[in-house]
Amino acid sequence: MPMTAKEIIHDLEQVRARSPLVHNITNYVVMNSTANALLAVGASPVMAHALDEVEDMVGIASALVINIGTLSEPWVAAMKKAAQRAAQKGIPIVYDPVGAGATPYRTRTILDLLHASPPAIIRGNASEIMAVAGAASTTRGVDSAAAADSALDSARTLSQRHDCVVCISGETDHIVRKDKTSWIKNGHELMPKVTGLGCTATALCGAFAAVADPFRAAVSAMAVMGIAGEIAAERSSGPGSMQVNFLDTLYNLDGKEIEQRLKIA
Amino acid sequence: MPMTAKEIIHDLEQVRARSPLVHNITNYVVMNSTANALLAVGASPVMAHALDEVEDMVGIASALVINIGTLSEPWVAAMKKAAQRAAQKGIPIVYDPVGAGATPYRTRTILDLLHASPPAIIRGNASEIMAVAGAASTTRGVDSAAAADSALDSARTLSQRHDCVVCISGETDHIVRKDKTSWIKNGHELMPKVTGLGCTATALCGAFAAVADPFRAAVSAMAVMGIAGEIAAERSSGPGSMQVNFLDTLYNLDGKEIEQRLKIA
Amino acid sequence: MPMTAKEIIHDLEQVRARSPLVHNITNYVVMNSTANALLAVGASPVMAHALDEVEDMVGIASALVINIGTLSEPWVAAMKKAAQRAAQKGIPIVYDPVGAGATPYRTRTILDLLHASPPAIIRGNASEIMAVAGAASTTRGVDSAAAADSALDSARTLSQRHDCVVCISGETDHIVRKDKTSWIKNGHELMPKVTGLGCTATALCGAFAAVADPFRAAVSAMAVMGIAGEIAAERSSGPGSMQVNFLDTLYNLDGKEIEQRLKIA
Repeated sequence: MPMTAKEIIHDLEQVRARSPLVHNITNYVVMNSTANALLAVGASPVMAHALDEVEDMVGIASALVINIGTLSEPWVAAMKKAAQRAAQKGIPIVYDPVGAGATPYRTRTILDLLHASPPAIIRGNASEIMAVAGAASTTRGVDSAAAADSALDSARTLSQRHDCVVCISGETDHIVRKDKTSWIKNGHELMPKVTGLGCTATALCGAFAAVADPFRAAVSAMAVMGIAGEIAAERSSGPGSMQVNFLDTLYNLDGKEIEQRLKIA
Repeated sequence: MPMTAKEIIHDLEQVRARSPLVHNITNYVVMNSTANALLAVGASPVMAHALDEVEDMVGIASALVINIGTLSEPWVAAMKKAAQRAAQKGIPIVYDPVGAGATPYRTRTILDLLHASPPAIIRGNASEIMAVAGAASTTRGVDSAAAADSALDSARTLSQRHDCVVCISGETDHIVRKDKTSWIKNGHELMPKVTGLGCTATALCGAFAAVADPFRAAVSAMAVMGIAGEIAAERSSGPGSMQVNFLDTLYNLDGKEIEQRLKIA
Repeated sequence: MPMTAKEIIHDLEQVRARSPLVHNITNYVVMNSTANALLAVGASPVMAHALDEVEDMVGIASALVINIGTLSEPWVAAMKKAAQRAAQKGIPIVYDPVGAGATPYRTRTILDLLHASPPAIIRGNASEIMAVAGAASTTRGVDSAAAADSALDSARTLSQRHDCVVCISGETDHIVRKDKTSWIKNGHELMPKVTGLGCTATALCGAFAAVADPFRAAVSAMAVMGIAGEIAAERSSGPGSMQVNFLDTLYNLDGKEIEQRLKIA
């Protein structure tokens, strides 16, 4: 049985009530929009990437989000150190393999991270999930060249391999844990026209993973993303207003909207 | 006697007329929003952090703003070099101790900077100011866990120690210089829901410090922030539109609005 | 004869149809807004700056955009490596000499890049183009201190020297290739009040250079920028809404608007 609207509403209320500190080591492009989305959903974002402080910051955080969108050596070293501390401490790690498959460096880096410190959740588009799983992939830069359901086998493989939840986002979002799968059909075609909404989804997975188990957290996060996205898109005339309305909608999202719009199975 | 609306309006007009070049070494999260706010208030922003150019950039700037929100070693080195040059040249330095107290690295870095090159103004939230002053603090990530007035003693201590102005921002903003204190009660509860508006306040302190003495500059900057923030919030339906309306309001802010709304003592 | 509206519309349709992958090595301030503008115009943006992956990323890209707005040594090394690979592969390189003339480091870096890997297009404001050409310049931070037409001689010199197109943006945009010049008078005075719209223009030059020859690409890009900018400004009440409306307008821009508004010679 899929999650109910009531359960998702409960998780959102938990995020708002507890305001978990989410430590992000993410890419330059989305830092501002990610921080704003975490604030809008009710969480407390912090960005820190210095080797000298990542362990201390993980020490006060409730979730760690690692996104490889604009890698370089010092950042990779910090990601590894932060992830190790998060694993020791037992807080959930969420990975976003941005552009995995586009360059060997990205694929290698995310594989290293996954093997060193197993995740609670991996969230990516279909191309990225296929690349991480080692399937023939066709990542074109950071946009997916494949439909979400074509990556389902890869998601199952990854979930088994790392004992984690895998979330493939796309027109339909698939959340996979070994033999368990849930899909969400909320969202809007304007969403991929705003840079970094995928990264935002990953950050929200981190916020929800601080208050619920990983499978449930990923489902709640993707449902909230999709529903806020479709409400925002209906009020927008393009990707500029979409970005603004998305934050407003996420901030004001109420239980009735979730109940009325949720498309889950 | 507190500053009058007329004096604040005068300072704003000076910023708009002179368009001071404000050199920012700041964090990745807020670079875009800070630059936009400086443009909106009438200043001219520049970001530069390379060891090879910070001294030259300080050489043509009218104020230096240093913000430790996303530190790393090369950036700290550049901050030190830039601050040293600014002190030699005699232009005001404004520090924003983002997340001081959250990790030892942040606290240590801001203390090093303060001792090497004394500031015109330090602006932070209550937790950060307490952490910098060495008081028992409870910084939780980058959001304050303490009310602004609980940090007043710390602000006085810091002001004495570094012969500078200390600005604690919060629901009430306190501007402290040794035994002199001014407070501003403008602003809106939606402001902390937009990432980086504190950093924006610091940048505006830099712009005003280029045209007025540090105490006056801090008061004018916080008054302009708070008034623009409350007007913008009244027109907004959430943190997304708030960010947009804040820039529009700041750009169009006129003397009448300042006179009508200023709450100072 | 200048380009016609029909030709510009054709180029825009080509960008939308082919969605060229544009690899950006750009500054921290504008990464988000640049990525959003490239998505809005129909291109596919990617940001990557690690020495370990820039060559691979250039290998799948259709254009390379290099912007020196927030330089540091590791980034300069990556720019050089990426540009070399782009030259070998034969994809267009577009340079944005942000703040050239403001510090010797910036001027030196852009000159090194230009000599190592010749560009398809250089786009800057008048001060920057004069600084790159070696003319007496008065760059003040990153804003131009000179009118666009005062840089025409410099643009011609640069175009000859590097066998490339030079685009000077300002109230009037001048696009120069040796003895050939075109100007565009679209745009709006609100545009320089939004940080990074110059950088956006450069990124659009990259997107158009992936589908048309460099001179035509620069003209089309500047016409699309200027027209989208003036439509957006008419709907805006300040630089905040301007930024939002610019993306919406760029996304929805149709042929009729280009035909009605184009001011070219």
